[in-house]
Amino acid sequence: MKCKRCRKAEAAVDLPSHNSAFCPDCFFLFFRRQVTEGIRKLSLLSPEDRVLVCVSGGKDSLVLWDVLMELGVPTEGLYIDLGIEGYSARSREKVLAYAGARGKEPIVVDLRAEGIPIPEAAKGARKEECSVCGTVKRYFFNRIAARRGFTVVATGHNLDDEAARLLGNLLHWDRDHLSRQHPLLPEAAEGLVRKVKPLWQVSEMETAAYGFLKGIDYVTEECPLSFDATSLIYKEALSMIEEKMPGTRRRFYQGFLHQNRDVPWKSGVLGRVEEKSPGKCISCGAPTYTETCGYCRLKERVTKTRGRS
Amino acid sequence: MKCKRCRKAEAAVDLPSHNSAFCPDCFFLFFRRQVTEGIRKLSLLSPEDRVLVCVSGGKDSLVLWDVLMELGVPTEGLYIDLGIEGYSARSREKVLAYAGARGKEPIVVDLRAEGIPIPEAAKGARKEECSVCGTVKRYFFNRIAARRGFTVVATGHNLDDEAARLLGNLLHWDRDHLSRQHPLLPEAAEGLVRKVKPLWQVSEMETAAYGFLKGIDYVTEECPLSFDATSLIYKEALSMIEEKMPGTRRRFYQGFLHQNRDVPWKSGVLGRVEEKSPGKCISCGAPTYTETCGYCRLKERVTKTRGRS
Repeated sequence: MKCKRCRKAEAAVDLPSHNSAFCPDCFFLFFRRQVTEGIRKLSLLSPEDRVLVCVSGGKDSLVLWDVLMELGVPTEGLYIDLGIEGYSARSREKVLAYAGARGKEPIVVDLRAEGIPIPEAAKGARKEECSVCGTVKRYFFNRIAARRGFTVVATGHNLDDEAARLLGNLLHWDRDHLSRQHPLLPEAAEGLVRKVKPLWQVSEMETAAYGFLKGIDYVTEECPLSFDATSLIYKEALSMIEEKMPGTRRRFYQGFLHQNRDVPWKSGVLGRVEEKSPGKCISCGAPTYTETCGYCRLKERVTKTRGRS
Repeated sequence: MKCKRCRKAEAAVDLPSHNSAFCPDCFFLFFRRQVTEGIRKLSLLSPEDRVLVCVSGGKDSLVLWDVLMELGVPTEGLYIDLGIEGYSARSREKVLAYAGARGKEPIVVDLRAEGIPIPEAAKGARKEECSVCGTVKRYFFNRIAARRGFTVVATGHNLDDEAARLLGNLLHWDRDHLSRQHPLLPEAAEGLVRKVKPLWQVSEMETAAYGFLKGIDYVTEECPLSFDATSLIYKEALSMIEEKMPGTRRRFYQGFLHQNRDVPWKSGVLGRVEEKSPGKCISCGAPTYTETCGYCRLKERVTKTRGRS
C-alpha cells in the first residue's frame, strides 16, 4: 500500500482510527502535527516556557522529549532513579545514552542517595509501591522545577493512558478524579508548577511507531513493582472496542474534554475541587495542603522503620 | 460448595459479583428480592398499577413476566409478531406455550395483519431494521396500554443491557440518550404511558439462571435481523472487566443512577430534555411531537412503496 499523503513511498504505519496509512517521513510529519495541535488546542505551552520533561527510560517519555526537541521547545530531561534493583540501572542507562547522543545531560535524582528508594519506602510506609512512587515523583517534579526555574513539567502520558484512566474513573464515578483529569493542570501555587501531557492526542501504537522508526532505544520491560492491573484491564477493554470501532478511544477522550470545557465537571456538577491555597510544609517548606507534606511524612516513616531494623 | 444462605443444599448458582453462591430455592428468593428492591428503590410500580409486560419469547421478557406474576403484580403479556420468517412463528409459539401453562392468553399484535411487517417496513422506509422495529414497538406499547387501561409498560432489559447502553452513550458522550437513560420513564402525556425496566438490577447471567432453574422454555436464537453489533461489543468489553473485577458492572450502572438523582443529567448539565407536551397525530390521534406520528409516517412510506412494486 502506498502512503496516503505523498502517494509515492510505501506506507509503513497503518492508522485505521485516522483512516490513513503513512510512509515514515509523512508519519513523522503527522505525529508532530498531532502533538503540536494537542499543545495548541489546550494551550499547554507558551513560547516563554522552559519545560522539564520527566523521562523514565520508557518509550513514551523519550518520544515526548524527542518530539519537543524537534519542535524547538526549550527542554531539559529529569530522570528519577527509583532505586529498583536492575530495572533502575537499565532505564538510567537508556536515558543517559539517549540524552548523550543529543548533547544533553539529564538532571538525575537518585532516590537511594535521597534515602528513600521506592521498594524500601513502600515497605516502611506499608503502602502500595505505585502510590508511594507517585508521591515521591510529584514531589521531585515540583522541587526540581521550582529550584531550577522551569515553568512547566511535561510527562509522557498518551491517549491510551488517559482514555483508560477516564474509563476507570467513570466505571467508579470517581468525582474527584474526574474533576481533575485533564492534559493541563495549571500552576496551583508557587512551587506547584503547571503539569502537561503533550502526547494526549497520540495513541500508544503511534508513539511506539514513532520511537521505532526514529531508532530511539528505550527500556521495554515494565517496572517490576507495577501491579497496576486495573489500568491494564481498562486499556484492554478499550483496545477491544477500538479494534472493532476505530476512532472510538479518541472520540471518547476528546468528547470528555469537550464536556469539560462546556460545562466543567469542575463546576461542582460531578465534583467540586477544593480551591483553597496551599500552605508550606513545616519540615521542608514545599507547598502542601497539610501541615507536613506527603513526602516528608513518608520520609519520616521510612527513617523510623530503618532505625528500628 | 454449599449454599451460602441455607448452608444445607449444594450451591447451584455462583455469583462472584455478590461474593455469594446459592442453591436453587435460595437463588429464587435472592432473585425475587433483587427485583423487588429494584422496583421499590426507584418507585417503578405502585399497588394500583396494571402492568403490560412486553414479551418477545426470549429469556429476559419471559423471566420478567414470571417473576412479576410470582410477586403478585397484576400483569398481562403483549406479544408483537414482527413478521419475520420462521423466527416470529417460533417465538410466538414459546410465548403462547408459556402463557397457556399459566392460564394466561397474551395480547397478540400481528404486524403482517397491520400491514407493516418489519422486513418489508425497513425496506420500504430504507431504514435499519432495528430502528424501524423500535418505532413500531413503542407505538403499539403505548396504543395497547392506553386502549386497554394499563398504567405502565414493562420490558425485560437487564443490568448487562443497561450497562452496555450506558458505556456506549458515554463513549460517544451522547447527551440526549444519557439524559433519558433510566429504568423509569414517567408518563409523558395521555397515551404515552410510563415505561419501566424491573430487571435493571439483575445480570444477564442471573436472569438466564432463573429461567433455566424455573424450566422456562424460551427462544434461544437471536433475531436474524439484529445486526446491532455495537451493543454486543460494549457488553463484551464490560464482561471482560467484570470477570476480572466482579461487581464493576453493577457499581457502574448504580453509580450513574446515583449521579442522576443527585445532580440530574436531566437538569441541563449534560443534556436538556425538551419538556414540551406532545400534540396529536393528524392521522391516528396518537400523541406525537410532530404533525404526523412516526408510526403513521412509516406506514405511509411502506404503503407507497408497496403500491409502486
